[in-house]
Amino acid sequence: MKAVILSSGGLDSTTCIALAVEKLGQENVSTVSIFYGQRHARELSCARAVAEFYGVNHYEFDAAEILKSSNSALLNSSTKNLEHSTYAEQVKKNSRVETYVPFRNGLMLSMAASFAGSIYEDSDGEIYIGVHQDDTAGNAYPDCRADFIEAINTAIKIGTYGKIKIVAPFLGKTKADVVKIGTSLAVPYELTWSCYERGDTPCGRCATCLDRARAFAANGIADPALKSFGK
Amino acid sequence: MKAVILSSGGLDSTTCIALAVEKLGQENVSTVSIFYGQRHARELSCARAVAEFYGVNHYEFDAAEILKSSNSALLNSSTKNLEHSTYAEQVKKNSRVETYVPFRNGLMLSMAASFAGSIYEDSDGEIYIGVHQDDTAGNAYPDCRADFIEAINTAIKIGTYGKIKIVAPFLGKTKADVVKIGTSLAVPYELTWSCYERGDTPCGRCATCLDRARAFAANGIADPALKSFGK
Repeated sequence: MKAVILSSGGLDSTTCIALAVEKLGQENVSTVSIFYGQRHARELSCARAVAEFYGVNHYEFDAAEILKSSNSALLNSSTKNLEHSTYAEQVKKNSRVETYVPFRNGLMLSMAASFAGSIYEDSDGEIYIGVHQDDTAGNAYPDCRADFIEAINTAIKIGTYGKIKIVAPFLGKTKADVVKIGTSLAVPYELTWSCYERGDTPCGRCATCLDRARAFAANGIADPALKSFGK
Repeated sequence: MKAVILSSGGLDSTTCIALAVEKLGQENVSTVSIFYGQRHARELSCARAVAEFYGVNHYEFDAAEILKSSNSALLNSSTKNLEHSTYAEQVKKNSRVETYVPFRNGLMLSMAASFAGSIYEDSDGEIYIGVHQDDTAGNAYPDCRADFIEAINTAIKIGTYGKIKIVAPFLGKTKADVVKIGTSLAVPYELTWSCYERGDTPCGRCATCLDRARAFAANGIADPALKSFGK
């Protein structure tokens, strides 16, 4: 069995890498980062550092052209300022979160499935994705929901002659649970980046900074990235 | 309602364009062609000619990097010679068709979903794909099957807040049925390209040339492409 991990350079996907390496060994794990025009391109260099830490092959693909017309606030082309509020507050205010990117996880999972089917042509493959329960509060990111993952997993299994499937180890878990699991696996969180802003240090105020801070606080530990990124 | 048609420059997808333009009007239809390293890149120029014929906006995206490690015989990087036999014969001989490209339709549908969600941010969207029953004989192309389309359609609907869905008008129909429908809509089949080989004229011997010839023969008409491409 071989695995491809969708790696954003953030906390959740880095914890996925730790799980996959523990289960399959680093020689059977590859990481994939996808540039889609995100304003926080910093995360891509973090994904490289994490891959180096784990000694796994790392690949990058560019999907920005497909999404360049989107007015998602997560894209670098957007002129919007990010709201500094939680997902739940944003969904309450609008019908979606401003940082929703059209079918982003579907696109990334499909790219990973085609890639895994290409590099692992003669073995079965798993695709890891770090979606968790907090991503879906109030239907914030519908492409993180369990029924979404189930549907696209069915499509991937059928469409690859049954060779490839999705592993989403944090479905039904909170980000605090992810930090707990990752801490027990000594995940190098000091290398990871979550902030949606463009700064050199995490802004500490965007939705994902707030969620990350809460997840560490719930475990009673300090976020090592605040120190490593000089905040 | 707006539509994006996955256009390969071939017979099936061109008939999809005719259906969508008839239903929604040319101003609400866009075509998308995806280069994935196919050896028959000729089809991309045919897709452009077809878009021009219908007066619709046409877009092209490049996914070749993702699939470049695949040893599919359909890819230009492949050193294999194509078998000149039908899909059914190939599946009988091997466990898959040699021209299977890993999760190709899943990748293309996901790219189309992200693109439609980006350019049609404020309206509902349909994605047309020309898969039909003959593609799936003997499980030749699993990513053309009805259960595959159903699963990925569910994923796309969930992952786009219910805004985007797939239309696969030829599910359960044969290629001969497609030609019958297209002929009634005066589809310009003389502009379309189906051959998997690299020649200037259709080879007349590859699986898709054979299937195309049979579809026209079943309708008792000559394939106009044989004349337009100088065969």
